[in-house]
Amino acid sequence: MELHILDHRLKIASVPRDNLHACTHGVFKLAFLAEKTRCKFFSFTQTPEDYTLIVDEEGLKEFPASERLTVADATWAALNVASGGGHSPAAASAVGVTKIAKSVIAPLADHNVSVFMLSTYQTDFILVRERDLPTVVRTLSAEFAIFREIDGEMEAIDNAAVSNGFVKPQNNRRPIIHPLACPLNRFCITSLDPATLPSVATLLMDIMFYSDGSKDTVSTAEDNSQHISFFSFSLIEGYASLVMDVQTLHRFPNNLLFTSSSNEMWKMVRIGGQPLGFGQLLTKFYECGIVAQISEPLASGDVLAYYISTYKFDHALVPEEEIDNAVSLLTFRPELSR
Amino acid sequence: MELHILDHRLKIASVPRDNLHACTHGVFKLAFLAEKTRCKFFSFTQTPEDYTLIVDEEGLKEFPASERLTVADATWAALNVASGGGHSPAAASAVGVTKIAKSVIAPLADHNVSVFMLSTYQTDFILVRERDLPTVVRTLSAEFAIFREIDGEMEAIDNAAVSNGFVKPQNNRRPIIHPLACPLNRFCITSLDPATLPSVATLLMDIMFYSDGSKDTVSTAEDNSQHISFFSFSLIEGYASLVMDVQTLHRFPNNLLFTSSSNEMWKMVRIGGQPLGFGQLLTKFYECGIVAQISEPLASGDVLAYYISTYKFDHALVPEEEIDNAVSLLTFRPELSR
Repeated sequence: MELHILDHRLKIASVPRDNLHACTHGVFKLAFLAEKTRCKFFSFTQTPEDYTLIVDEEGLKEFPASERLTVADATWAALNVASGGGHSPAAASAVGVTKIAKSVIAPLADHNVSVFMLSTYQTDFILVRERDLPTVVRTLSAEFAIFREIDGEMEAIDNAAVSNGFVKPQNNRRPIIHPLACPLNRFCITSLDPATLPSVATLLMDIMFYSDGSKDTVSTAEDNSQHISFFSFSLIEGYASLVMDVQTLHRFPNNLLFTSSSNEMWKMVRIGGQPLGFGQLLTKFYECGIVAQISEPLASGDVLAYYISTYKFDHALVPEEEIDNAVSLLTFRPELSR
Repeated sequence: MELHILDHRLKIASVPRDNLHACTHGVFKLAFLAEKTRCKFFSFTQTPEDYTLIVDEEGLKEFPASERLTVADATWAALNVASGGGHSPAAASAVGVTKIAKSVIAPLADHNVSVFMLSTYQTDFILVRERDLPTVVRTLSAEFAIFREIDGEMEAIDNAAVSNGFVKPQNNRRPIIHPLACPLNRFCITSLDPATLPSVATLLMDIMFYSDGSKDTVSTAEDNSQHISFFSFSLIEGYASLVMDVQTLHRFPNNLLFTSSSNEMWKMVRIGGQPLGFGQLLTKFYECGIVAQISEPLASGDVLAYYISTYKFDHALVPEEEIDNAVSLLTFRPELSR
């Protein structure tokens, strides 16, 4: 297996729902007038609490500095696990976070590397802080051939030079420390031809900015029975990905969106009864471990899961017929009830 | 002839080009998601200097208070001259400012009433400050049957009660005190079916917000040979109007826009070599007279003219074959050269 360190230098930002107008101008340009920017990585995820933006440095230029937009200090790099050969998101394929739980997510958590996940229709991006890249390379070089994208070309990193003398730590136990919620919505992971974006621009803008879903907040375990306002759109290296619930899907014209052939529906496990704080409220140890806390039990039960981190919460999407199984795996872990 | 005082309570705002992102959110909603607001009057005009917004109180709610948006203090009422019978903008017809120069514009200037003009594809709106309405009614009641729109119904105002004892002042001489410019662009005054707006949303947004025309400034008489960045869009009581130059028109799909049957092209006379100040830089006398200064000579020469005021400049549009005539009328007025 290959691990690709992609050429994007990413920023992660949060916009409170009350201030969403502060990012409308930039989001419209990045989503619908992509030919007018040199931004190659743009992701927008709406939750009841905030909007999370992930953009490269070119994309960030579209958002004027403002107290209404909280940009996390660090610059992030995007990693991709590929089965080898292709180097584009299309060549990589979305395998979900469970397939890489043991080989990538757990070892990074063991080495205190924070991980921010973005699963899309095409692939799974593993975001790590740039300053953690040396640790990432040392940690994963035993399992992966590691390539670094430079000017669009993948160059192999000499594993022997970096992995020498690096001791693999013992696996930590990772109890799930955050409350989980399971909204009622059924989700779809879809894509479309970017050339068709103008035909749904008003619909997408309506969904992203003018449909107030804040009343549908699902934030605590007690609220498990509610729907959540959740929508994720990304345009990365020319590939569009949309994650939305079935109600939203029905607002789109027939045959515009493509879904995987099996037409799967997904249900969400939302992690964090209160905002996770993203390095502010929580200790670094716990912050690092969140994706691992969730993905390891799901992997042990062989439950496929896509994973979307936002600034304040984490979201795992599992096939709807597996949701009960997933919740069992996450709440009744044998090693915890021992 | 009838004069209708429409039921809109309007605000006029200016957004500097550097701060245009501050109004993107509101403009998108008012232009493309009109069903989500109760705004009935929305006009947006882009010039090299700023964006001028005219919105009713419902529309203003879409723009958060901000130092980036300058809203003129006064509340404005919209007047319409109708030939009688219909009460909608469609029933009224755009006759241009010259047809009402002597009957409306000049008498209001004589009584120190400021006028802000907005010609659209459908009609000509004469905006006056609400506090000036009693003067307007007294001044125009001799010439017009005056109706006031109340809850969508037109109610006649009793002229006898208001016009008693009001002495018509002598006509003032109104020299043209501002420099004029004649950009090279050829303009079209067009409309479209609002139901087709979503199909051109990205194009319209591109034109309004993401095509930087500020380098094409035409602001002084010396610069007469340049093009100007000018685009006006309005959606008023469900009717759309667009004023744009031919280059911009060619970006639209064929057959989407409708123009008048004669397919006229228009050229612009721009009034004001420096920002007119809109009540800040100029004395009230001069401020009141601008539309009259321009429309009276054009009316005397029987030159049709549409007229679009913006926060800082005024713009008359005349049939292109009349532009030389119009400039002569405005620059070599016999009574001035005597």
